[in-house]
Amino acid sequence: MKKINLGLIGLGVVGSGVYSILKENKKHILLRRGIELNVKKIAVKDITKKRSIDVDKSIITSNIDDIINDTEINIVIELVGGIDFSFDLIKKSLEKNKHVITANKALLAIKGKELFGLANKNQLEIGFEASVGGGIPIIRTIKDALVGDKIKSIYGIINGTSNYILTKMVNENQDFNYALKRAQELGFAEADPTLDINGGDAAHKIAILASFAFNSIIPYDSIYCEGIDKIELNDIYYAKELGYTIKLLGIADEIMENQICVRVHPTLIPIDSPLANIKNEFNAILIDSHFLGNSMYSGKGAGMFPTANAVVSDIVEIAENIAYNIEFNEYKNIHYSKKELVPLSSKCYQYYLRFNTLDKPGILAKIAGIFGDNKISIARVIQKGKHKDSFVHLILETHDAYENDVQKAINIIDKLAIVDPPSTILRIMHPGNSN
Amino acid sequence: MKKINLGLIGLGVVGSGVYSILKENKKHILLRRGIELNVKKIAVKDITKKRSIDVDKSIITSNIDDIINDTEINIVIELVGGIDFSFDLIKKSLEKNKHVITANKALLAIKGKELFGLANKNQLEIGFEASVGGGIPIIRTIKDALVGDKIKSIYGIINGTSNYILTKMVNENQDFNYALKRAQELGFAEADPTLDINGGDAAHKIAILASFAFNSIIPYDSIYCEGIDKIELNDIYYAKELGYTIKLLGIADEIMENQICVRVHPTLIPIDSPLANIKNEFNAILIDSHFLGNSMYSGKGAGMFPTANAVVSDIVEIAENIAYNIEFNEYKNIHYSKKELVPLSSKCYQYYLRFNTLDKPGILAKIAGIFGDNKISIARVIQKGKHKDSFVHLILETHDAYENDVQKAINIIDKLAIVDPPSTILRIMHPGNSN
Repeated sequence: MKKINLGLIGLGVVGSGVYSILKENKKHILLRRGIELNVKKIAVKDITKKRSIDVDKSIITSNIDDIINDTEINIVIELVGGIDFSFDLIKKSLEKNKHVITANKALLAIKGKELFGLANKNQLEIGFEASVGGGIPIIRTIKDALVGDKIKSIYGIINGTSNYILTKMVNENQDFNYALKRAQELGFAEADPTLDINGGDAAHKIAILASFAFNSIIPYDSIYCEGIDKIELNDIYYAKELGYTIKLLGIADEIMENQICVRVHPTLIPIDSPLANIKNEFNAILIDSHFLGNSMYSGKGAGMFPTANAVVSDIVEIAENIAYNIEFNEYKNIHYSKKELVPLSSKCYQYYLRFNTLDKPGILAKIAGIFGDNKISIARVIQKGKHKDSFVHLILETHDAYENDVQKAINIIDKLAIVDPPSTILRIMHPGNSN
Repeated sequence: MKKINLGLIGLGVVGSGVYSILKENKKHILLRRGIELNVKKIAVKDITKKRSIDVDKSIITSNIDDIINDTEINIVIELVGGIDFSFDLIKKSLEKNKHVITANKALLAIKGKELFGLANKNQLEIGFEASVGGGIPIIRTIKDALVGDKIKSIYGIINGTSNYILTKMVNENQDFNYALKRAQELGFAEADPTLDINGGDAAHKIAILASFAFNSIIPYDSIYCEGIDKIELNDIYYAKELGYTIKLLGIADEIMENQICVRVHPTLIPIDSPLANIKNEFNAILIDSHFLGNSMYSGKGAGMFPTANAVVSDIVEIAENIAYNIEFNEYKNIHYSKKELVPLSSKCYQYYLRFNTLDKPGILAKIAGIFGDNKISIARVIQKGKHKDSFVHLILETHDAYENDVQKAINIIDKLAIVDPPSTILRIMHPGNSN
């Protein structure tokens, strides 16, 4: 039995969850791994704050240096969020020879290269299972289960707030604003939900996943990112009529050996796709790899205990490596490959397009002509009755076409007098239906 | 960079897959983990046999002692199947200080206690990710991702053949025998499919999963096991009418702190259950754990490369532990807990029951009366037209009732002159719909 000392920085929702799990399952973890995990110190902003959990006051401090300078602490667990403060404290911890665990996806997406580099230099580990997909062990799966495989594509429902809102729109006909309000009331959305609904949070997560899946640091700011804030109930209905549901997906796929495309956007997927049944606040990640084929991992993507559970799994892994004296493997965090990032504009998709057009004869012919001129072929057309004033909805589903060509065509169409812009462009994919 | 020597025993479907992956992704694994994996020797039954893969003849032997006695070989990979021969060679390998990897679920289910005990005594690891769920990293997930959590229940679609047959029955109205024949033609069922369709294979797998999930060796022969061979198309139709689909599930759940129930049987599950969309040869395992809640893992449960991929993930993990000198953690394979196995007869379920009854007035009253006498309350009734001669189908869905009481009632009913036995008893569960 070996004792490993932990320093916890932050005692908010996830921090309290970590503390509770470690307390409740201390003996269980000891029996399973022979390791005694001891929370030696907890740093918080406000020592006097009332907490929902019962913590021994003698281990609480408001000074993070009490943790960083404590030579008996082996692992620092950063659960404060934000960028600059977290970056500083993780950097200092690594410099003081401490392993680090974090759930901070924004930080890793933006500063991952620097932090992993520093960790490697000092022969230390950074555990970050909790940063993507909450309780879903997706980092482990990519790093360990698929270590001998090559990943071809990742499709992730990795923002619980968006998935909750879209589920309510699809299943209960709630409009976007009402569903968002309900999500906030239920705690599935933040008071400021900007990063959730504009796709930014999903972009952080797909950046992290893609970096490890494709062994190449993905610059966060190069990721095309479109959220769900422009999805209307009409589009949900028409998609359903065409056999699709709408999910916000983080997507990364390999085009050729050294080219990948990483992006976030709402996506129409067939209702029998394995991702279509992932509802409400649940997350799921579908991976297509060369040898394993399609595999999918789903579970709660956020919340106190799911996220804390992932943090605890990292604590045990790193603690075990310390206790059983494993030598540091510098290869583990190396992104040995340099992939070229292909912009979305050169990708090929099927498209769902909705135009608000005047209700006059000849309009479909006009629009279809513009598509033909741009090498886009149409698979299905739906025309819907009165929309507003004298406008109607014209919905087109295309065959595979290049994003560039579609954008060009839409630009032309949106300038026509018969069309009330902006037109709606959504992409269609078939994740998990290929094998 | 460290070189680890492997001895492969068996070069059938999975063995060939392992060899191919190691060959194709040797550099990839080296770059990811700094380990060179070298297949030093391969033992096969027949050296002269033509093989679909190109293997250097100089490393092939027909004598397994060439591997077991080779002191340079660090890891033995057993891929021959069967019980006695495999048990012997694994035992010998462990005695000769070699780590072992196996995909042999029958062996582990039956002889696991002895083998893990021997491995622990000699401070060696047994990798067995490939034994359950093919390419799904479920053993890793239970042992590592959920190490700090407590598992409440496991529901597994863990026999691909059964799932393929049931999918064809549900989606294409194929009858059992036709679907089985198709599965054999497509390679999803063995020439002798007995263990697949009688539930034995699923029982091996749930025994392994439950042992590690509940930290207690589950004696294989104590598992209640019922296969899909008695499922009729009629039951598929009626289940659908009631909102259910039918899956063969391996199930293990905790009743109280020290009691678990482990069994395999066809199960009616709601069509919107996350397990309902797992189709054809795919497997899925749904776990409900105390902190994480419901999480699900799905992918191909068998086949050359999915299974080989799991073997390779074990090779890399054990090779890394050897290369980076981790000390052996004896706790890892200890089943520290002793759980009481609760028999199915004392479990509580909802039931789907089908009776072949005469088409006469008063029969429902008679049968309902017997249910009432046995404390079983009825939720829904369907009566279907002519079945054979003058018999009709009477389908009952019960509220929660004890298996014991239901069996008692059925025994009485099957002896009535108005009933043509045997009646069909299927259990209804709601996996994944609780949270």
